[in-house]
Amino acid sequence: MFKLYYYPNNASLAPHFLLHHVNADYELLLVDKKSNVQKSPDYLKLNPAGRIPTLVVDQQPIFESPAICMHICELFPDSGLMPHIGDPKRALFYQWLTFLNNTLQAELMVRYYPHRHTNDQATIPNIVAAQDDRIADALSIINDQLAYNQYLLGDQLSACDYFLFMLAEWSLPIETSPLAFEHLAFYLKRLCANSTIRAVCAIEEIDLSPFESYSPELNKEGVIVGT
Amino acid sequence: MFKLYYYPNNASLAPHFLLHHVNADYELLLVDKKSNVQKSPDYLKLNPAGRIPTLVVDQQPIFESPAICMHICELFPDSGLMPHIGDPKRALFYQWLTFLNNTLQAELMVRYYPHRHTNDQATIPNIVAAQDDRIADALSIINDQLAYNQYLLGDQLSACDYFLFMLAEWSLPIETSPLAFEHLAFYLKRLCANSTIRAVCAIEEIDLSPFESYSPELNKEGVIVGT
Repeated sequence: MFKLYYYPNNASLAPHFLLHHVNADYELLLVDKKSNVQKSPDYLKLNPAGRIPTLVVDQQPIFESPAICMHICELFPDSGLMPHIGDPKRALFYQWLTFLNNTLQAELMVRYYPHRHTNDQATIPNIVAAQDDRIADALSIINDQLAYNQYLLGDQLSACDYFLFMLAEWSLPIETSPLAFEHLAFYLKRLCANSTIRAVCAIEEIDLSPFESYSPELNKEGVIVGT
Repeated sequence: MFKLYYYPNNASLAPHFLLHHVNADYELLLVDKKSNVQKSPDYLKLNPAGRIPTLVVDQQPIFESPAICMHICELFPDSGLMPHIGDPKRALFYQWLTFLNNTLQAELMVRYYPHRHTNDQATIPNIVAAQDDRIADALSIINDQLAYNQYLLGDQLSACDYFLFMLAEWSLPIETSPLAFEHLAFYLKRLCANSTIRAVCAIEEIDLSPFESYSPELNKEGVIVGT
């Protein structure tokens, strides 16, 4: 039995996708972010960083969303969600999951919580503007990777794709939306047909329609604008 | 044969430690950061994020320092640098490596490159001040973990420790130095006796003396100040 301490559409979303995908026996435990429960003494015993998510399995708490994802993948080796040791794609899995986490996710966190990164709240708009550009840069690198690959690692879905879907959802309100990137936009639209994404987004009340309704803007010659 | 694209005391340092520790056949290739070579077309073909390091092994380039570290660990499974699949410490390895990368390293990057995160350079001091506090918070969480553990994962050295040593070195000039945290400071001093750390820091011309000369400040009763 897995216990996932979560909040809807938080960093718990990627582990939630994986638990659903592997058909694990799991329980969701809401951490009430609105009441700052993630900073309560009881929660800090599980997760000293005071963030969401935490996964408890066999009485062992594990924090950090990508770490939880890799752990679930290795507990379900037949899921195909993470290339096995010895597979040439194993290192690429580590590479893309790390990039998503330490670049796209890290830049999104500064974008959405700029007040944490300055001691003068008047400077927040300056940070937000810079972050919008940095998020677009990260999305562009991912878009290039998807130009010739159905999924991030090639022709097979992996945990990296679930992680990216979570971050893309968070990126929708950003100045340059993920849907401004053609390959990424088509990929995200395709992922909306994935039964795990549909089921988990229904549970967490996440609206898939912005992805599903994507259709590229065409110029007079019928060519996608920007290509 | 491994080729590590590196720059002294950059994020290539942790992979360099690991290649040395496992006694790999490796070659160091300097990426001249001062001339911005990491943004050159040739380098971007290896690493579209345009950052250091990149590891090339069997013609396959891999980027992102933690990903390179995990890949090296799995290519040398007898090194003991990463708990095997099935070992209860495997998930803790993922957890701490991820935390170091997406929290301590990410906060350090904003601290050292604040101009990238604002469109008004006058706001840089505001960002630096906030980041100093955030780095201290991350170091404090690590210090707590080291209060009852010889290494990050317990009684055995892992790649996480090499990664932390790199970040601690970067943190020395920060307002609250890692040496302000007793358990962390003793741990870093102990790591300076590690033959790989000594050898690689000699190659990269990194001065170990701030760690080696650590001695705690005592109050009148002979108790360490702050404990």
